[in-house]
Amino acid sequence: MVIADDYGRSRGESGGVDISELNAALGDPVLDSMNFLNEVAARFPQAVSFASGRPCEDFFEFDDIERCLRRYREFLTADRGYSEAQVVNALFQYGRTKGIIHREIARYLETDEGVAVDPESIVVTVGAQEGMYLVARALCRDERDAALVVSPAYVGFIGAAKLAGMPVLPVAGGLRGIDLEDLRRQVGEARRRGLRPRCVYVVPDFSNPSGICMGLALRRELLQAAAEEDLLIVEDNPYGTFPAGAERLPTLKALDTDRRVVYLGSFAKTVLPGVRVGFAVADQPVTVAGRPVGGLLADELGKLKSMLTVNTSSLSQAVVAGKLLEHDFSLLRASTRAAGLYRRNMGLLRRGLRDRFPDEDGPVRWNEPAGGFFLVLTVPFRADDELLERSAREHRVLWTPMSHFYAASPGDRRELRLSCSSLTPQDIETGLDRLAKFIAEMSTQTEGARHEPL
Amino acid sequence: MVIADDYGRSRGESGGVDISELNAALGDPVLDSMNFLNEVAARFPQAVSFASGRPCEDFFEFDDIERCLRRYREFLTADRGYSEAQVVNALFQYGRTKGIIHREIARYLETDEGVAVDPESIVVTVGAQEGMYLVARALCRDERDAALVVSPAYVGFIGAAKLAGMPVLPVAGGLRGIDLEDLRRQVGEARRRGLRPRCVYVVPDFSNPSGICMGLALRRELLQAAAEEDLLIVEDNPYGTFPAGAERLPTLKALDTDRRVVYLGSFAKTVLPGVRVGFAVADQPVTVAGRPVGGLLADELGKLKSMLTVNTSSLSQAVVAGKLLEHDFSLLRASTRAAGLYRRNMGLLRRGLRDRFPDEDGPVRWNEPAGGFFLVLTVPFRADDELLERSAREHRVLWTPMSHFYAASPGDRRELRLSCSSLTPQDIETGLDRLAKFIAEMSTQTEGARHEPL
Repeated sequence: MVIADDYGRSRGESGGVDISELNAALGDPVLDSMNFLNEVAARFPQAVSFASGRPCEDFFEFDDIERCLRRYREFLTADRGYSEAQVVNALFQYGRTKGIIHREIARYLETDEGVAVDPESIVVTVGAQEGMYLVARALCRDERDAALVVSPAYVGFIGAAKLAGMPVLPVAGGLRGIDLEDLRRQVGEARRRGLRPRCVYVVPDFSNPSGICMGLALRRELLQAAAEEDLLIVEDNPYGTFPAGAERLPTLKALDTDRRVVYLGSFAKTVLPGVRVGFAVADQPVTVAGRPVGGLLADELGKLKSMLTVNTSSLSQAVVAGKLLEHDFSLLRASTRAAGLYRRNMGLLRRGLRDRFPDEDGPVRWNEPAGGFFLVLTVPFRADDELLERSAREHRVLWTPMSHFYAASPGDRRELRLSCSSLTPQDIETGLDRLAKFIAEMSTQTEGARHEPL
Repeated sequence: MVIADDYGRSRGESGGVDISELNAALGDPVLDSMNFLNEVAARFPQAVSFASGRPCEDFFEFDDIERCLRRYREFLTADRGYSEAQVVNALFQYGRTKGIIHREIARYLETDEGVAVDPESIVVTVGAQEGMYLVARALCRDERDAALVVSPAYVGFIGAAKLAGMPVLPVAGGLRGIDLEDLRRQVGEARRRGLRPRCVYVVPDFSNPSGICMGLALRRELLQAAAEEDLLIVEDNPYGTFPAGAERLPTLKALDTDRRVVYLGSFAKTVLPGVRVGFAVADQPVTVAGRPVGGLLADELGKLKSMLTVNTSSLSQAVVAGKLLEHDFSLLRASTRAAGLYRRNMGLLRRGLRDRFPDEDGPVRWNEPAGGFFLVLTVPFRADDELLERSAREHRVLWTPMSHFYAASPGDRRELRLSCSSLTPQDIETGLDRLAKFIAEMSTQTEGARHEPL
């Protein structure tokens, strides 16, 4: 353990920084969420973790990296006619701000999602997270520009919007994925308060954290509502490659006829989290005084990116492109084995819950996601950070309190998010045994508590 | 050439975004600077470019990547005792927000710079650029928190500060690197206007764009002035590894006794630009209501980073660590050949200028940098973007108008930045011949213009 004072310099108080002198977003609990959850996981390494949403490592091999790099190098040489010097330049030098594998990403979108986009509308980003921040920062002129967020929502977008200076307005997700009546109500209320709602953030396919997949009719209605309310839709799609069944629905971007959707893609789950490569499709024409000037929103995002990260690691981009090339631009094909594992795990999780909580009218309930990594379990007691800590310490099982996914006051939430993406069947069984025991213990205590005077 | 309209979707006007509805930073000329300069370079590929500040490619080889990756892998296995599964986890999964090679970076700082820092005070960033943005965004509570910037300055910091929402206040650089009287005057004036000057950004070693290296006495005086004015110093050091002579001065961080300095490091020039890895050392203790709470400014930067890019590509970090391991943590040793080339090129550039402009009292003058990539040439006419375009088109030689490096109105600048980092000796001679011809032609025209009525 390294102690700061070991480093021999006299520590003047003057060099300190008071938290009150730093950006207010740093005081937002959202920014502590990820740290807290990681920290609990680190303190209880022996616990079975239903908390982590990381992809399964079984399909990662060290040699993949070199193979993918070589594949991309061959492609540049053979297909693009690059000299060795040009290959070195492309892979190792400063690169194009919007990215160097935009054409390959466009081919992937056409292959897997049936979406034809102009490669110039693609910005390759440092994970989808950078895309979220770029969009939020671009849309934020001042504190009146607000982002609507289906609640519960991925903390990454809530945090990005807040860090960008945007107020975050929750919209009820309901059982279908978004409550459009509530969307319209929130937009109206926000406008009455002098805010300018600019976009609505959704994860239509197997959402994190709710696991919900929006139906086709709802997707069309959402596009219609966004057009009527003049909102951009920020569609985040990290899990679309992993349906539980055979069917996959078209993305909002595929249904988008008037460039309403900014699409955020991620290669973290399909290629490697460690490469940190995602992308944004922002094909909205930019106008000046209402007249198109030839540029796209993607170009504006690129300008912001040039001051944030300059460009995305070209080495990382090369690995992603190599993987795409290996599988004829289909990540569905590249992910067949992983998708099978996630499908199996989700089945085991649901079956395991049914076995342990057979009473269909009982207080322990859960939803039935049609794919992805996540399922939401409702319990008859408040499931907060304190309880997670107890669950980890006394029962060696980790989960995520759903309270972390609510932008507004999380209130008295009785829900946990369970992830099954990086567990073995044995882990799932052991974890569920522990979880069931924990829930039984807590339920008894809560029952007892009911008889106490308020 | 791909045309957006080829993609067959009906383009509704409604989906467009007016520039007036986007973040005001997007209208700032600073954000266009890089794009403009890159675009000129792309349009005139046959021109000799004194504009590009990229490192020389002669020392990049494709096989370096694999060798560095393997070296880091061996280190994790042999020195850290990692299993193969742990190696895969470290390299390929989501990683620690502040980075995974912080201990190796701390050893490098101790080896090359004689600076002992707590590895926990290091945040590995997506290039130094992300570090600039993190610091600026952390220090910006509202539009009254301002950044002082030695003028002329690297556009990356000016852009990052503006994008973070910070007003940028220029401080005269003068011939020594910073005019401390002007620093004090600007701080005083800013405070009278209700601003809160938070930090001063400097590149003490072979600055971009001016090439100036601050003397030792000035470094101490700057630290003293920052303490008296209660400012943080943001020290950016991408070129310190490349002195023209034998002597290297201690960094501000090495002289910093009361944690006044946030140090930004870059591996773009010493390892590879394409990896996009830099780091910030932010060892300032964070206080709450004046009392230390155990955390460092680095932890706060990490929180912001978790909402910006989550973490820096672990693959890229592994390449950097491998390079550090190969050279016993010394980038000075790793960069011997590159440093020699930059030293030779700077000598050729200066000698070439002397040969072509022998009149010491003439109107064409230049400074004599003690290292780094850049030199500033003063000419007897305004050197703006329009003139660069003409220089490129008619004389096939590129340079950078110094006006791009002034945060405030660039005015009527007669200076060009010349970079010699990625040129051959032959290129330097050819480029200088063309430049001399261009300058002669412009000088004649300007002389003529003097006789015209105003």
